[in-house]
This record gives sequence, structure tokens and C-alpha cells, in this order.
Amino acid sequence: MMHRIAIDAMGGDHAPGPIIDGAIASARHLPLGLLLAGPRAAIERELARHADAPSLDITILDTPDVIGMGEAPAQALRRKPRASIRVAAQAVADQRAVALFSAGSTGASVMAAYAGFGLLPGVDRPALATTIPTRTRAAVLLDAGANVECRPHHLLQFAAMGAVYARVALGVANPRVGLLSIGEEETKGTEVVREAHRLLKNAPVNFIGNIEGRDVYSGVADVIVCDGFTGNVALKISEGLVDAVEQLLGDELQSTFSTRMGYLLSLRAFRRFRKRVDYSEYGGAPLLGVNGLCIIGHGRSSAKAVRNAVAMAHRFAAQQVLAQIEQGIAQVPVAHS
Amino acid sequence: MMHRIAIDAMGGDHAPGPIIDGAIASARHLPLGLLLAGPRAAIERELARHADAPSLDITILDTPDVIGMGEAPAQALRRKPRASIRVAAQAVADQRAVALFSAGSTGASVMAAYAGFGLLPGVDRPALATTIPTRTRAAVLLDAGANVECRPHHLLQFAAMGAVYARVALGVANPRVGLLSIGEEETKGTEVVREAHRLLKNAPVNFIGNIEGRDVYSGVADVIVCDGFTGNVALKISEGLVDAVEQLLGDELQSTFSTRMGYLLSLRAFRRFRKRVDYSEYGGAPLLGVNGLCIIGHGRSSAKAVRNAVAMAHRFAAQQVLAQIEQGIAQVPVAHS
Repeated sequence: MMHRIAIDAMGGDHAPGPIIDGAIASARHLPLGLLLAGPRAAIERELARHADAPSLDITILDTPDVIGMGEAPAQALRRKPRASIRVAAQAVADQRAVALFSAGSTGASVMAAYAGFGLLPGVDRPALATTIPTRTRAAVLLDAGANVECRPHHLLQFAAMGAVYARVALGVANPRVGLLSIGEEETKGTEVVREAHRLLKNAPVNFIGNIEGRDVYSGVADVIVCDGFTGNVALKISEGLVDAVEQLLGDELQSTFSTRMGYLLSLRAFRRFRKRVDYSEYGGAPLLGVNGLCIIGHGRSSAKAVRNAVAMAHRFAAQQVLAQIEQGIAQVPVAHS
Repeated sequence: MMHRIAIDAMGGDHAPGPIIDGAIASARHLPLGLLLAGPRAAIERELARHADAPSLDITILDTPDVIGMGEAPAQALRRKPRASIRVAAQAVADQRAVALFSAGSTGASVMAAYAGFGLLPGVDRPALATTIPTRTRAAVLLDAGANVECRPHHLLQFAAMGAVYARVALGVANPRVGLLSIGEEETKGTEVVREAHRLLKNAPVNFIGNIEGRDVYSGVADVIVCDGFTGNVALKISEGLVDAVEQLLGDELQSTFSTRMGYLLSLRAFRRFRKRVDYSEYGGAPLLGVNGLCIIGHGRSSAKAVRNAVAMAHRFAAQQVLAQIEQGIAQVPVAHS
């Protein structure tokens, strides 16, 4: 069976242009079909730029409404039952597509997926799992922003889902799970973190204890667990710092004539490195814990990022990531604190 | 009057060596005296390496106990009334010194300063204020780790103290205060952050609203307010990311022969940049809100960092930073939420 991916064509800072370009690029090279949700006229205008579009398996889910980045997600979803993100999520719920991709408002995407798919048994909150580079191999940080506030047993569930995901998606045999805190001792951190530490010590995951911010990029952990507020701040600080390094590095290097050539050479190299931390290059972050595949992209997603995210959705469907997460979470004791 | 600085000679990963070396370096060039707290024999052994030590104004506060980095601060302070950090803090409380410096356990240093000095009127919690580089000028981030959990009115007080500090220590005329959250809208963030936003809107500070992690290093805010858990994670992630960038940049640049020269030139430049984000180069972070000057250094503090931190303590005493913070906080409405 040909896998179809449902896409919120209107989600993203520059939608629908790069969304449709990226989706088409993926459909050209992979055996997949596209369901594009949004106003038909806007989507057809973008499709017209691609001569081969008629030869691809593309269906438009014509719907008039769009949820903007600034809108409060819950109210906007209630007010706009025909918003593109809801229509795309519904296509997955109805099994017309195997996965959902959205680069729109993270809050609205999370809520639409949650409302459309429900949660896997044993999961109380979904978590956004971001892949980050480290000094050694890639790691998974979750929650990257689906939940602002978490209870200890939510963090336990994130750990279990993150470990399965690292195994299946990153190929790590026995993922080392670290809990993000402000000291390695189990007495360090907020009350929620300290209680989560206690739960994790007795959980069926390879828990290595607390890790500090310093170790997020060091490669000591394959799965880094935190609440969505901390995770979001951590990732966005990293993005901003890399931007600042790029600028300041340039300033430093341009400051003397003799370093000019070094500057030009190293800027090129730095940009290659930059891609390894750039969310938009990775494509997207899966929303784990909902009963359906959902990949959420950065609002700034380029066509290339969308192409990578759609390819990721396709790969996850083929690898049955969802069923594996479901099995993994079933082994975690149901803890409600 | 000659200002004397009280120093926990035993605090820091490599104490007492770099602590005493740095303290002496500052005393050589500034009109200040040193009170060094710790076991006399250990301190005298280090002093013996400096031929000019006898000509400087140095007093040893002989005390046998030391609090290690791994000890739980509250219990350790109770169990060791003659710990070097307590003895050094007491010297400031007794007005034998104008300021305290410690590169030991942050928790123990904060508690010793709090116990020894008390709080300024109108302050419910002290905050550690770290200076960070941005794309434009330096900014202050607080709390960097003195308080794991905060209430909204604590964040309000941090904002007021941070604004005075940015004005006095960084010379910023009308410091722009940003609240660290996961979206610019005032509805974004944890319950504590949302309530703090409401308090800040009505406070006598130049509040520019929420800022995201991306903007911490962009220069949009001069004062960045957050709880100590978030602040600690944010700063340590930054340190770790810069380390990772340094390594990965080297890997990238060494990957082809033609970029070798560029690598050597840019590594030198990168190391200059690195100093701008390196906590140990800044010297230390003042603990604001306690009724006495207290500078806390990184555990990894080098002799140079200690020298800079002691010089900072001396400058703050001369500038009457403490009295100015006290005036600043007096203008903030007493809000208890």
C-alpha cells in the first residue's frame, strides 16, 4: 500500500510555498502520496509551479480556515473546525493517511493531533522529541515544548518513549537516559525533578541519573528528559547562541587582515556545522505518545526541511515506530503522582 | 580606608592554589586587603610561593573545616560551624571585610551569605546575577541558580535588582527587562511566569515583555529574568554548546587539507570569542538581595578568574552597589503571591 502523508499546507511562517515545494520534493523520490490541507486555490497556485505535480499522488483537502502563529490554540481550534491543521489530523484519524506533518503553531498542532488521535495506552501527555547533535552521535531531547508544566510521572513516560524512539529512529541499542537538572546528585532540582529521579531509578530504562546543562551536547546521554518549558528554552537558547557565535566569530576573524582568509574558510566550515544544530535541517520533531504519527516542523521550515520531515514520517510509518512506542510504554509501571 | 575582601580560600575545584594566586594578583594591583579563610598550614604553603606576599595586607582566618562540592549545603553548614565559607561570611557580617568571594559550592555559598548577612528590606530571595555576552553589549541573567523554585513576586524582585545592577555595574541607562518564557505573548509560559508577567507590567522597571530562549544572546534585553532552575540550565547548556562547537568546528575544519590554515587561524579567534562566554573569565556572579556584597565564582575558577572576581568585589564596594540595590528594590511594590 502506498503511504499517504497528510500535510497542513498552510502551517509555517512562509506557508504554503516552502511546505508544498518540500512535500513535492519528497513525493518525487519516495513511494508516497500527499494529502494537502488548505484552501484549494492557494494550493493549486503553488502546485502549478511544478510541472510534474499532476503525475504525483496528490489530493487536496479543500478547507478555508487557517490558524495563525499568534492565535491561542485551544480557542482557535474550537472556533475553526475546518482549520487546515484539524482537517489534516482528521485524515490520519480516518486512516486516509499514515502520518501528519505540520510546521504551523506548535500548540495548535499538538492539540489537533491529541484531539484527532487520542493518546496511547499508558501515556498521560504527549511529548515533542527533538534530535540534537552531540560531540559523539545524535541524541533525543524531550519534551521540547508540548507541555508547559509536567508532573513526575509525565517525565517517566517521556523517558520510556524517548528510549524506544532513540532505539528505533537513531539505532541506539541500549539508550542511556539522563534527567536534566542543576546537579548530578539526586537531591538537586525542583520537587518535580527530584520525584521523577526516584521514579526513573526503578523504571525499566537505562537511567544514568541527572545530567546538567553542560552535558546536553557532550554525548553522555542518548535521551535527555525535561519538561516542555525547560526543553523549549534550552533548544531556543542553543539556536540563538549558535547565531551569536556565527556573528561574533565573524567579527573576531575580520578584526585583523591576516585572519581574513581563515575567516572565509572557517565560515564555510561553520555553516556546515550549523546545519547539525539547525532544527530546520533536521526536518521536524515527532510528537510521541499520541495514537498516530505526527511530525511537527519549525515555523521557519524551508522546503528542504519539509522534504526531510515528510521523508521522516514515511520512514517511521515503514518502521512501525508507533507500534514500538506503544509496546515500550506498556512496560512502564502506571505511576500517578 | 583600605577595603578588605574575605575569601573562602578552600572553595573551588582546585582550591586553594588558584584561589590564593588570583587573590594575591588582585592585591598586587589594587588598594585592597585579603582575609583568607581556611586551614593556616594549607594557606601558608600557597602564600610561600609568592615572594611579595609578606608585603601585602593579608590576614589568615585559620579554620579547620571545608564544605565539599558534593555535600548537601544546609546539613554541611549546620555540621561545620567553622567551615571556611562560614568564617569568611562572618568576617563580612562583622564588618572586618567589605565583600565575600567564594568559588566553592554555590548552594553553601548562597546559604552562608544569607545566614551571615540577612536580606535587604523588600527582598524575599537572593538571586545570582550572571553577566552574559550578547550580539551587542553585555546583559545580566538572573537567577542563575540561587533558587530552584520561585514564586511570581520573587521574579519581580529579581527584575528590580537586575535593573539596578545593569545600570550600576554595566552602565546601562534604562535597562530593558525581559522575562524568559516560551513565547512572546503574555499567555505563554508556566503559571508562575504568566503571573510574573502581570506583576512586571505594572512595576517601575522598563519591562519589554517575554523573551524567548532565541533572544537571550541577541541583545534585545539588558536584564533577563528567570527562576534559578531555568537560569542554571540555560547557562550550563550554553557552556556545553560552546565546548561542543569548538570541538566540532575543529573536526569540520580539519576535514580537508585546504582548510587547515583556516582552522589554525580561526581556532585562535574562536578562543578569543570563547572568553566572552566563559564564566571563569568574567570572574564571578554577584549574589543580589543579601545585605552584604557577595561574589560567587565558578567551581572551575582559574587564578585569573579569581583575580577578576576580587577586583569586581572591590569595584562594587567603591561604587556602593549594595546601597543602590537597596534603593532600587525599595521602589518595588511589596507583592506576595
